[in-house]
Amino acid sequence: MSAFIDFYFDFASPYCYVGSKLIEEIAERHGRTVIWHPMVLGAAFKAVGGAPLPTLPLRHDYVERDVTRLAKFYGLPYQHPKQYPIPTQHAAAAFLWGQDRDPERAKAFAAQVFQAYFVEGRNIAELDVVLDLIESFGLDRSAAHEALNGAPVKERLKAETELAIARGVFSAPFFIVDGEPFWGYSRLPILEKWLADGPF
Amino acid sequence: MSAFIDFYFDFASPYCYVGSKLIEEIAERHGRTVIWHPMVLGAAFKAVGGAPLPTLPLRHDYVERDVTRLAKFYGLPYQHPKQYPIPTQHAAAAFLWGQDRDPERAKAFAAQVFQAYFVEGRNIAELDVVLDLIESFGLDRSAAHEALNGAPVKERLKAETELAIARGVFSAPFFIVDGEPFWGYSRLPILEKWLADGPF
Repeated sequence: MSAFIDFYFDFASPYCYVGSKLIEEIAERHGRTVIWHPMVLGAAFKAVGGAPLPTLPLRHDYVERDVTRLAKFYGLPYQHPKQYPIPTQHAAAAFLWGQDRDPERAKAFAAQVFQAYFVEGRNIAELDVVLDLIESFGLDRSAAHEALNGAPVKERLKAETELAIARGVFSAPFFIVDGEPFWGYSRLPILEKWLADGPF
Repeated sequence: MSAFIDFYFDFASPYCYVGSKLIEEIAERHGRTVIWHPMVLGAAFKAVGGAPLPTLPLRHDYVERDVTRLAKFYGLPYQHPKQYPIPTQHAAAAFLWGQDRDPERAKAFAAQVFQAYFVEGRNIAELDVVLDLIESFGLDRSAAHEALNGAPVKERLKAETELAIARGVFSAPFFIVDGEPFWGYSRLPILEKWLADGPF
């Protein structure tokens, strides 16, 4: 049994925002550490033949209503973004760049990215917004800019996404506990029972 | 405020089976009556551009694992069907035919259809299996056979599906409470808070 919980997320997904809050609370209750894995869902959807939820008619309106209610239910701040969905390569790359240096601080950065997009209405698709957030952590803006434009971090993001698909991750949020997959924030009560009682 | 909860379901969906059990318990706790609406999801998916979950690679295996766990979590019997998914026109038409006569008895019939498919491994796509179930309720097999082959019940099923889509139902299980839509068994805790506290 590993002491980890793998958490796959896309910064563009409000369900990942909700899931990110809940999974850290669950992990703390059970003495586990969450490993955060950013994905760019467009690439994943291409591989598995799905489609981003908001592109389907009827569902787009529902998502805003659903997430607004969910956030109230869980007591989380939420403002549905004007630009939605958006590409999240820059934010995901920035997270990976930071994770190599300090995984816990990278999580704090990720929380700020979610906050910027889903609470403060900032467009995290823009490189400048991502760099502003990096700078707010006391990190060097131009070094970050150079890193995010470089090939290594882009290749790393591509490899992370491929590895996720190879592990059976087909959407997000997605959680893996001791080899057991859980898709969606809504399966977290089941995941927590799994942690508490073992496989069932 | 209406005293009803609309419940849209497809007999082929294990999440509808789980949802059918949970929604009746919730309705009872809050003095509401559930109105059951059978759908044939293939038609709905065609209209809204989605795809049945099991046709997407990676997701098919996950569904079996997910529902098996969910059933254990909620204490429901479950055996993942060998034939999955299946067409459910006959079962849906039989439900509508019975609902005109006795809505409560039609629900008991629906519970038997779910039980036959998700617990006893019977293929409810087959007209003979549906007729066996009808007969077990003491109803006349040949009258039922004639009705299920007739145009009126087929047109009624088509109209029900079109009406569902017009109300914004794009998948199942889907619940509507006082105009508020809830998609998926997993939103039932949110729906129950809505019933208890009013809109939020």
